Amino acid sequence: MPELRKDPIMGRWVIIATERAKRPTDFHGEPPEPAPSFCPFCEGNEDKTPPEIIAYRAAGTAANRPGWRLRVVPNKFPALQIEGNLDKRGVGLYDRMNGVGAHEVIIETPQHATTLTALGPQQIQDVLWAYRDRLADLKRDVRFTYGMVFKNVGKTAGASLEHTHSQLIVLPTVPRTVADEMRGGKAFYDYRGRCIFCDIVSQEIEDGDRVVLDTEKFLAYEPYAARFPFETWILPKQHMSHYEEIAKLGTEELAYCLRMTLAKIEKALNMPAYNYIIHTSPFDVGAIDYYHWHIEIIPRLTKVAGFEWGTGFYINPVPPETAAEFLRNI
Amino acid sequence: MPELRKDPIMGRWVIIATERAKRPTDFHGEPPEPAPSFCPFCEGNEDKTPPEIIAYRAAGTAANRPGWRLRVVPNKFPALQIEGNLDKRGVGLYDRMNGVGAHEVIIETPQHATTLTALGPQQIQDVLWAYRDRLADLKRDVRFTYGMVFKNVGKTAGASLEHTHSQLIVLPTVPRTVADEMRGGKAFYDYRGRCIFCDIVSQEIEDGDRVVLDTEKFLAYEPYAARFPFETWILPKQHMSHYEEIAKLGTEELAYCLRMTLAKIEKALNMPAYNYIIHTSPFDVGAIDYYHWHIEIIPRLTKVAGFEWGTGFYINPVPPETAAEFLRNI
Repeated sequence: MPELRKDPIMGRWVIIATERAKRPTDFHGEPPEPAPSFCPFCEGNEDKTPPEIIAYRAAGTAANRPGWRLRVVPNKFPALQIEGNLDKRGVGLYDRMNGVGAHEVIIETPQHATTLTALGPQQIQDVLWAYRDRLADLKRDVRFTYGMVFKNVGKTAGASLEHTHSQLIVLPTVPRTVADEMRGGKAFYDYRGRCIFCDIVSQEIEDGDRVVLDTEKFLAYEPYAARFPFETWILPKQHMSHYEEIAKLGTEELAYCLRMTLAKIEKALNMPAYNYIIHTSPFDVGAIDYYHWHIEIIPRLTKVAGFEWGTGFYINPVPPETAAEFLRNI
Repeated sequence: MPELRKDPIMGRWVIIATERAKRPTDFHGEPPEPAPSFCPFCEGNEDKTPPEIIAYRAAGTAANRPGWRLRVVPNKFPALQIEGNLDKRGVGLYDRMNGVGAHEVIIETPQHATTLTALGPQQIQDVLWAYRDRLADLKRDVRFTYGMVFKNVGKTAGASLEHTHSQLIVLPTVPRTVADEMRGGKAFYDYRGRCIFCDIVSQEIEDGDRVVLDTEKFLAYEPYAARFPFETWILPKQHMSHYEEIAKLGTEELAYCLRMTLAKIEKALNMPAYNYIIHTSPFDVGAIDYYHWHIEIIPRLTKVAGFEWGTGFYINPVPPETAAEFLRNI
């Protein structure tokens, strides 16, 4: 059972993945490349993944057989385990609990596409809808507090398989970054009486120079204090605290906005490695006025050095206004 | 002039390095390797760096000429500029100030050594003493609030030159990571009446299974909630909030402890890329009871993927107890 441990100084939780424990020699040099000829995510290889949790598939086709458009399966090497209780305990000064949670993989297409932008609009809508389906389902398990959807594209960004897929990790605690954003959002709300994300949407549209794509319901823009070159956020313009309420806005326009934004980044930067992450509100709070779900897209262009690790203080060599102008003009 | 911008949600500051602004095409593929035959940090090449700020050198030798044991020079491509005023301003919702600060390079030896562990005990003491000298000097400039000493070793860790060196960045604001640690330390102090770092030292010595090296005045250990495999911290056992007070403990034993710890990590992991960072208290507070300077050593073994970026929630595949046992036994 992996273990969750809390740093007593920062209050940050860490997953100590005891099951995958490595020896120092495992870190000598690059790991061997997997044979590129075989892909466990392609149609026909359903038996090479754990059994599917859900799938969108043609009527009459059997589970774990061809005929699907999208499959969600447990991660074969999960960071957290679905069974068990939390067993929260102190260890002297320290706090720990069992690494109970979910770690799922969303396989976005039966064909061997390597990027989300290669998929058609309906397929991307399926992907966005699968995120919702899984969050809405896992939310009902009272052991879990938070669901984080993310995507790694390219080896530099941590992807081990190139077949386009996303991941979902469900945690028994709110991750630090979101907790910090919520604290900031709450402080602003208490002081100004408005959602800071809604205010950002207004100011970005008014300023215009950091906007990448402005659609009816969504805004893609470069944050004023972007940590990374070409870091891009997508926000729904209408206030909404939980991603799983996306049905109210429709996934059609978000699919368009996400695909266009990623295509611009891929073109500008020549198919860079990137991550995107959906930040949404915790499972155990109802609709809230001070937090607003959003997607953070982070191209992996610069090496993060000691200074950034040590400080949480980033050096971004590309002004967001410059990046936005490039992306707008593509 | 680079610009400091504050993220309005998280309160995190970012350096937007406008002077080094890059075009998207600059990120296509790996940057060309610098010619390895020439090193601007080697003795005899003093004119290839900006003029020295201080140097430890043989009596009678001239500045910016051979004869030195250690030199401190301004970074040729500084992230921050030493001249100017802060000009703090709001920009609508957002906050900015000028990127005023210092960015210096400590060249640790005139010979072309590529690791600190290749240096003799006296040379390492010089390095530790130079950190102190520069912090104590820059602290007198009222525009500056924080001094961060760090070291990048290996390309993966962000080093662009292999000649062993450290860097010092001085900031007009306390970096987020340290502010968070101080907040945690303060909360513990208010509740328990003791320094949390001092308590950690006691518990680690008592537990013993995360200890790497235990000397009279210093403890090297793997943190209970280590974020990264083989992450190692060095703490002075005696409470001390500011690194620049190191004279009180003596650099001799710290030089020994740091050298031995790094040598163990280099041996266990076959000369990995790594960073170390000194966390110390801000310039503008006196000696405080709730924060304790320390060195964080982070071998760069795992790729940080979307999940970690998105959550601030790390997955560490090596239990700290396992890592500590390996390092102790070297």
